[in-house]
Amino acid sequence: MANDPKFLTIAVLGGTGKEGSGLVLRWAQSGYRVLIGSRAADRAEEKAVELNELLGDDIVQGMSNVDAAKEADLVILSVPYSAHEPILESVKEVVQGKILVDVTVPLKPPAVRTVHVPEGLAASLEAAALLGENVKVVAAFQNISAVHLKQLDHAVDCDVLICGDDDQAKSEVSQLVEAIAGMRAIDAGPLANAVAVEALTPVLLYINKRYKTVGAGIRITGLE
Amino acid sequence: MANDPKFLTIAVLGGTGKEGSGLVLRWAQSGYRVLIGSRAADRAEEKAVELNELLGDDIVQGMSNVDAAKEADLVILSVPYSAHEPILESVKEVVQGKILVDVTVPLKPPAVRTVHVPEGLAASLEAAALLGENVKVVAAFQNISAVHLKQLDHAVDCDVLICGDDDQAKSEVSQLVEAIAGMRAIDAGPLANAVAVEALTPVLLYINKRYKTVGAGIRITGLE
Repeated sequence: MANDPKFLTIAVLGGTGKEGSGLVLRWAQSGYRVLIGSRAADRAEEKAVELNELLGDDIVQGMSNVDAAKEADLVILSVPYSAHEPILESVKEVVQGKILVDVTVPLKPPAVRTVHVPEGLAASLEAAALLGENVKVVAAFQNISAVHLKQLDHAVDCDVLICGDDDQAKSEVSQLVEAIAGMRAIDAGPLANAVAVEALTPVLLYINKRYKTVGAGIRITGLE
Repeated sequence: MANDPKFLTIAVLGGTGKEGSGLVLRWAQSGYRVLIGSRAADRAEEKAVELNELLGDDIVQGMSNVDAAKEADLVILSVPYSAHEPILESVKEVVQGKILVDVTVPLKPPAVRTVHVPEGLAASLEAAALLGENVKVVAAFQNISAVHLKQLDHAVDCDVLICGDDDQAKSEVSQLVEAIAGMRAIDAGPLANAVAVEALTPVLLYINKRYKTVGAGIRITGLE
């Protein structure tokens, strides 16, 4: 029983945002205990009330980013790129020894449909450099449309490319992926490969606009 | 009739390589006149003989890169990254006013399964900077497995993400994509977005090894 991943407590920092709250909903629906973190604890608490109502359950809790990161077994970071570094600094101490899954995409508004390569090449590489070697940083979920996450009765037609330098951490994140209906976890290599995955998000945003759709995603072909 | 794309002559610089010769075969099979370019004209001529035998036709010709680029209406560049800049320098003059489709991926051997971001962020952005504003550089075909291209009776299960700053040029390249069975052309935005598409190739090479397959590709979901 102790190995059942459902006994994990997941913190979603930035869980009040569109993508973050979509992930919170899906994992809560699958039975995980989920903590919403926000810079303002009261906003996180309000969001938790809203999501619990949607779920008809009382499984989501809201609190500050630091408290959520401290209490969780595994930490998800889903924030606008402009908030990425300050939030990482604020939780650096409390995530030591944990897995941090970075969902952040280095978009540069207003040109969010054009790839922007940050100084450290990828947000998740910057996170790993900032947090140090005792945090296992994994990059995942950047290409999943928030619109699909919110439709709880609807399977998400998208693969999740998982990048990281620790195989055990990637395998734990794969379980979180496959807890969401429709998603398939794909091991996409070392954390350096997150450059490709993060850069794909502005391409998908471009495709959404160009083809008048809302939730373009990707599938890997040629497997099996 | 003059607007029929089949009246285009296509040069594939680096057409003796695996990916390049796969593209040559597919376009020749679709009825395009295709010129193989190589640094050594005799190697290009030998390859043309070999491919014409496979095709049972006499539609492919081999010559030097410069002669092929000069004679063609549209130029494809499919070379190892180490040869990218010198070959571009050699054809710079003769491609002025044309479309150049860059298929080159900035791999850094031996770590070809790890993303390598070049100085100019993408090979195709480097090509555009080198060739100047009178050449319409389009990035495409980087994610297509050569293995699939070679199996002529087999549809290629992969979308082709097309990046470029000129809509007319992207539309011409779309026609070349859809001339190959199974492929779907997707407008993926400005040339800056080629960063994502080029970086996806080492990820696909990683996936091939990790999942013991040979021809992983991608499909965009959520369209229509």
